[in-house]
Amino acid sequence: MAEVVHMIDSEVFLAFSTYATIVILKMMLMAPLTAYFRLTRKAFANPEDAGMRKNEEEKKKMVRTDPDVERVRRCHQNDLENIIPFVVIGLLYALTGPDLHTALLHFRIFVGSRFIHTIAYVMVLPQPSRGLAWMAGMGATFSMAYRILTTALYL
Amino acid sequence: MAEVVHMIDSEVFLAFSTYATIVILKMMLMAPLTAYFRLTRKAFANPEDAGMRKNEEEKKKMVRTDPDVERVRRCHQNDLENIIPFVVIGLLYALTGPDLHTALLHFRIFVGSRFIHTIAYVMVLPQPSRGLAWMAGMGATFSMAYRILTTALYL
Amino acid sequence: MAEVVHMIDSEVFLAFSTYATIVILKMMLMAPLTAYFRLTRKAFANPEDAGMRKNEEEKKKMVRTDPDVERVRRCHQNDLENIIPFVVIGLLYALTGPDLHTALLHFRIFVGSRFIHTIAYVMVLPQPSRGLAWMAGMGATFSMAYRILTTALYL
Repeated sequence: MAEVVHMIDSEVFLAFSTYATIVILKMMLMAPLTAYFRLTRKAFANPEDAGMRKNEEEKKKMVRTDPDVERVRRCHQNDLENIIPFVVIGLLYALTGPDLHTALLHFRIFVGSRFIHTIAYVMVLPQPSRGLAWMAGMGATFSMAYRILTTALYL
Repeated sequence: MAEVVHMIDSEVFLAFSTYATIVILKMMLMAPLTAYFRLTRKAFANPEDAGMRKNEEEKKKMVRTDPDVERVRRCHQNDLENIIPFVVIGLLYALTGPDLHTALLHFRIFVGSRFIHTIAYVMVLPQPSRGLAWMAGMGATFSMAYRILTTALYL
Repeated sequence: MAEVVHMIDSEVFLAFSTYATIVILKMMLMAPLTAYFRLTRKAFANPEDAGMRKNEEEKKKMVRTDPDVERVRRCHQNDLENIIPFVVIGLLYALTGPDLHTALLHFRIFVGSRFIHTIAYVMVLPQPSRGLAWMAGMGATFSMAYRILTTALYL
């Protein structure tokens, strides 16, 4: 990390910013998708969400879990568990001054794997499609973490 | 992002640091709030949390869900799903060198919206108060993401 | 934050990178640990995960919750709720130019506390071991947040 100040201005950092923003936006879109399933399946988490024109009894009936809603929520949770580590590790990795093509490869594999993961999860594709997508993303993040620890280790 | 190195030292970056810290602290306070509800409602997630002077039978009875505890936990989860993206996008946005007043507007709308969201959620205010607060926060983050992708796109 | 540009190249920043990477890796390892418990307890979240050679009836039976799986998942969730704030606050803290020994103390207490927290949670150690570990981590993060707000406050 000797010349990290110059690195923050580099193509690697621009590429990181672009891919991190795209994959965070993808994660954020899980929230409207959950809302869509909650509305169409009439399965809400809170009685006050069930609509303004209904009485208390009707609202309470609509506070329930639905398999499709829960599936989208698990997908969202898996995004949190994988995309946030990618963003943190990716930022520190970009500051270690890696080769541009190696960095792009990592970012593209990760972001691509998360789009495939979401499609496989929400559309219920048979395994191991979702499992392999998840592993590819984990692999990209672990590989970047390895470079950070070999370049910048300071315990 | 041409002059990003100078930007990290700027008022925009100081403002980002301040608002990001405040909103992360707000998110962290959901944990003691959950603990408070778990203790007063006697609804724990683990038998070992239910108190040291009780026997195994009593402890197991207190491992249960409570509507108030679950409400605070959903609020905490919504914070994770929205505040973490804001912090990541906001950091990259601050490095694109935006106008100070525009940046402050984004940060203030986001942080304000999340405080309103928490109050609306925990105090069960009627909808659409919580929904509108959530949308304002999403809008601020999307607007910053738009600037990153138009300023720093590198695919 | 007057000399923040120089700070990003400092030993404090290298130390932050190292400890943040280690604790994020620890968090990521909760996912394989959950998978291990799901496989050994035969308790899956999705029917398509329950194995390729089984019929639909058998798969649906294996979509169930298991106390050991839920315990690891709560531990993972607690990591998300605590480690992500540490990483964000720790990054901004490292940019305020703190004393190296003070910074190392904060990073080591936090990372150590999270390893103890995980061991206490997964191995069901009696309380208050897990509670104290959680509080030590919260304390380290709050202390760093205090320095950010006293050094860089810009509202």
